[in-house]
Amino acid sequence: MATYSLGIDFGTLSARALLVDIDTGREVASDVCEYPHAVIDDHLPSTGEKLPPDWALQDPQDYLDALQKVVSAVMKQSKAQPSDVIGIGIDFTACTIMPIDKSGQPLCFDSRWASNPHAWVKLWKHHAAQPEASKINEIADARGEKFLHRYGGKVSSEWLFPKLLQILNEAPEIYSAADKFIEAGDWLTLQLTGIESRSACAAGYKAMWDKADGFPSGDFFRSLDPRFERVVDEKLSRKILPVGAKAGELTDGMAAKLGLMPGIAVAVAVIDAHVATPAATVTKEGSMVAIMGTSSCHMVLGKSPKIVEGISGCVEDGILPGYFGFEAGQSCVGDHFAWFAENCVPESYTAEARSRAIGIQDLLTEKASKLKPGQSGLLALDWWNGNRSVLEDGDLTGMILGMTLATRPEEIYRALIEATAYGTNIIIDSLHAGGVEVNEIIACGGLADKNEMLMQIYADVTNREFKVAESAQTCALGSAMWGAVAAGKSRGGYDTINEAVAKMARVKDKSYLPDPSAHAVYARLFDDYKKLHDYFGRGENDVMKRLKEMKTLS
Amino acid sequence: MATYSLGIDFGTLSARALLVDIDTGREVASDVCEYPHAVIDDHLPSTGEKLPPDWALQDPQDYLDALQKVVSAVMKQSKAQPSDVIGIGIDFTACTIMPIDKSGQPLCFDSRWASNPHAWVKLWKHHAAQPEASKINEIADARGEKFLHRYGGKVSSEWLFPKLLQILNEAPEIYSAADKFIEAGDWLTLQLTGIESRSACAAGYKAMWDKADGFPSGDFFRSLDPRFERVVDEKLSRKILPVGAKAGELTDGMAAKLGLMPGIAVAVAVIDAHVATPAATVTKEGSMVAIMGTSSCHMVLGKSPKIVEGISGCVEDGILPGYFGFEAGQSCVGDHFAWFAENCVPESYTAEARSRAIGIQDLLTEKASKLKPGQSGLLALDWWNGNRSVLEDGDLTGMILGMTLATRPEEIYRALIEATAYGTNIIIDSLHAGGVEVNEIIACGGLADKNEMLMQIYADVTNREFKVAESAQTCALGSAMWGAVAAGKSRGGYDTINEAVAKMARVKDKSYLPDPSAHAVYARLFDDYKKLHDYFGRGENDVMKRLKEMKTLS
Repeated sequence: MATYSLGIDFGTLSARALLVDIDTGREVASDVCEYPHAVIDDHLPSTGEKLPPDWALQDPQDYLDALQKVVSAVMKQSKAQPSDVIGIGIDFTACTIMPIDKSGQPLCFDSRWASNPHAWVKLWKHHAAQPEASKINEIADARGEKFLHRYGGKVSSEWLFPKLLQILNEAPEIYSAADKFIEAGDWLTLQLTGIESRSACAAGYKAMWDKADGFPSGDFFRSLDPRFERVVDEKLSRKILPVGAKAGELTDGMAAKLGLMPGIAVAVAVIDAHVATPAATVTKEGSMVAIMGTSSCHMVLGKSPKIVEGISGCVEDGILPGYFGFEAGQSCVGDHFAWFAENCVPESYTAEARSRAIGIQDLLTEKASKLKPGQSGLLALDWWNGNRSVLEDGDLTGMILGMTLATRPEEIYRALIEATAYGTNIIIDSLHAGGVEVNEIIACGGLADKNEMLMQIYADVTNREFKVAESAQTCALGSAMWGAVAAGKSRGGYDTINEAVAKMARVKDKSYLPDPSAHAVYARLFDDYKKLHDYFGRGENDVMKRLKEMKTLS
Repeated sequence: MATYSLGIDFGTLSARALLVDIDTGREVASDVCEYPHAVIDDHLPSTGEKLPPDWALQDPQDYLDALQKVVSAVMKQSKAQPSDVIGIGIDFTACTIMPIDKSGQPLCFDSRWASNPHAWVKLWKHHAAQPEASKINEIADARGEKFLHRYGGKVSSEWLFPKLLQILNEAPEIYSAADKFIEAGDWLTLQLTGIESRSACAAGYKAMWDKADGFPSGDFFRSLDPRFERVVDEKLSRKILPVGAKAGELTDGMAAKLGLMPGIAVAVAVIDAHVATPAATVTKEGSMVAIMGTSSCHMVLGKSPKIVEGISGCVEDGILPGYFGFEAGQSCVGDHFAWFAENCVPESYTAEARSRAIGIQDLLTEKASKLKPGQSGLLALDWWNGNRSVLEDGDLTGMILGMTLATRPEEIYRALIEATAYGTNIIIDSLHAGGVEVNEIIACGGLADKNEMLMQIYADVTNREFKVAESAQTCALGSAMWGAVAAGKSRGGYDTINEAVAKMARVKDKSYLPDPSAHAVYARLFDDYKKLHDYFGRGENDVMKRLKEMKTLS
């Protein structure tokens, strides 16, 4: 009789459940449910009130409804017995936070507060707290706050404290009414277990927390706003659990709702990108996991903290217990190609794709595959959505050069893909320069699964082998693995993530090996990419910022 | 009873005749005939032999056939009497040359030579003589040849001597068999009049001739090749007539063929761009004529020679007798927008244009018109076809920056148009820096006639009024005006081009005035254009050349 763990992956638009056989890693059943309210960025559902630009909210009821639906679906599909399921793991987007009351209910469920947009979940991509993020960066920099180093020198507007400060500024009544503010992932484990168990992953990467140093000082928070001095003790929690710990056990009530057994282990929540690391087989230093989708995220483990330029975070216990997890990222990868396919491809291509019943990107890839490295004569900077690592600058924009009257769409498409590969190479070089070795790369995510040309370009550009995780659902699989670890050996799971990886995770047989002659061309192109990267990205010519400013003014 | 002059405009793909009332400038009738062989760039019609890359030939029989057809057509349309037509003017593309025998017949008409590609007309855009052009530039520069200054320091592969040198190198038997080499425009006046009358316009702009200094020395030509020493005396002519002179009179034979009166005046041929100058009303120094079409050409008159960076030529008597004619150009204007419309516009736009029965560029213009200066956040370098003025570098390529995931096709389209306006502004600045004043601008050509948004952008970028020539056929009108001047007052025409301009040419009532607030934004954008222009164009970062080289190697 098989033993299962449940991984629940809460993404930006939907939740996915994956039921996994913990002895073999076999993915027994999966189901996806889209959130009815998706991303709330136009008007507030409760009142119809128009939301300002850069806002992005969600309705936590969507999470609960989706959870119930996907768990029921996989149990039904798999014909598994509730007693066969020994653990649950959850991963969630971050920083996605909400204000809750003493009972753990979101303030937006309360009719007294539902009409206030600040009572709702602020999704990770709520970008309206940029003034607060800038203030935090400015003051932290002036005070020489050590925590900044862990984040490559800059805090993002997507993170916890900018968002809280925005609420304090714009809706002090909500700030005051909230018993706590909590990450949606931690709120989910609270709903499942009745216990508040905050994750070192979200706290470390998004809330400026460090295992050794804790949160920034009250003195620092007071310098932002006198009312903010005790924000950690008043509105958060100092009890932070490492990834892999058990958050608690499933309550009777939730067990009944989900059709599972009460008392089974629930793992501490993990950020959706970071949870893929063990699912991509990585449990040791020197191996990089690259999740390649609409954007890309790069994670490497190390034994000691390092200062790396442009890193999104360096967090102890944040990816695997006992390791420092380094995270870097590229903010525009699949999004970039989708933009191109939607805006820049002529009707004749669209018609050809349709007549052959293939996707437009499949057609572009087919045509671009016939080109040799260097043949397009094009070079691009992949900054259509700013640059996360290593420049950490949202005001940078895209660039492409080399066009002639003979330039074809597939050449531009390939140049955009190559640009993202150069961007990855910059990140690897920066990690090395900071003393973080990258000896192995395992890719996962939609692009790694689907686009062989892209993977070969990445291998050729970086001159490294790219392995690919076998699972097409590495996030949900990672969560299921943490569920098995939370249960522990005594309850049919595993005591360590290494044991779980050995049984449940693997890479595909096929990997992408660099071609020496292609690499020789790409090495020359990368030199030029680097030169333009530094010219436009490091202040020699701030034309991109000037254009963006003029755009705002016009 | 009206008196008429006939202007014949020989373009790249077709010839056009325009019958003009010389008292009023009224365009009485016009007709166009496409050349059956168009541009011969794939295989030789006589043998089917495949042509090498960069070759572009034509069949001179096409010119004769087209001439007869269009002249007959306008005479028939207008119901004019042959005796009412007092003069003929011709303009032609240049440098478009052919080898002829003693009787003035092209060698390709001779069965002994017809199978040799070098016996045919080499069209202006035959670019296969680049090695010869490079050799000429190198040796002339090393010898400190003064003539180079008149061409901004560089001779183009499109010009006469590189083409002759290519023939000497690759087909010495043709070089030897040719009695002369002649510009197609001058060949046409030879056919019409029986007299060889070479034009100062083509000789000055394309054959390194100068009114004061003549051709380069035999010593220089010998340094290129010993067989080339006496090229001028053996294969060309030193008798060069100023623009506006009478080339001769219509022969009996040609008069019969064309249905005109024998003995009427035929003007010296003029290059097609340059002939537009009087048709755009310009007869004095300080006024610039900008012909804006697939590429753009800028002409200004001056009273003395000047050294101007990046000028295509400075020729005495080359545009108007008694003046130095300065020419500059942009090699990619309408071509640029057409490339974009063909390669980069999504199906939804194409479908919208079709459903509204408008052109795709009309739709793009409509959408782009709604944008304010600076609103796109984009900046481009308009070098999709290299840079003619002021950098004179065919290896430069296009660049665009500022793209985000929200960038729309009409924003890119507008940025490309703006880039060509910045390019024009660079040319104006360079002329000023060289001591050539530009106090007035009159535009003509397809874009000036059709695209109001584009014209307003040019006015706003340059902070200058743009007037527009009234005629939509300024080249053919200019030729007709020179025909009237060749006839002279005694035969019902004019003694000077000024008299012809006063009666036959005018500008439209509507001109484009710069908007101060738009100019303020464009002045800032132009600063950034200039910075990137110099960075990529003047050697600070030769990435475009490196990419082009890699493209050639791959």
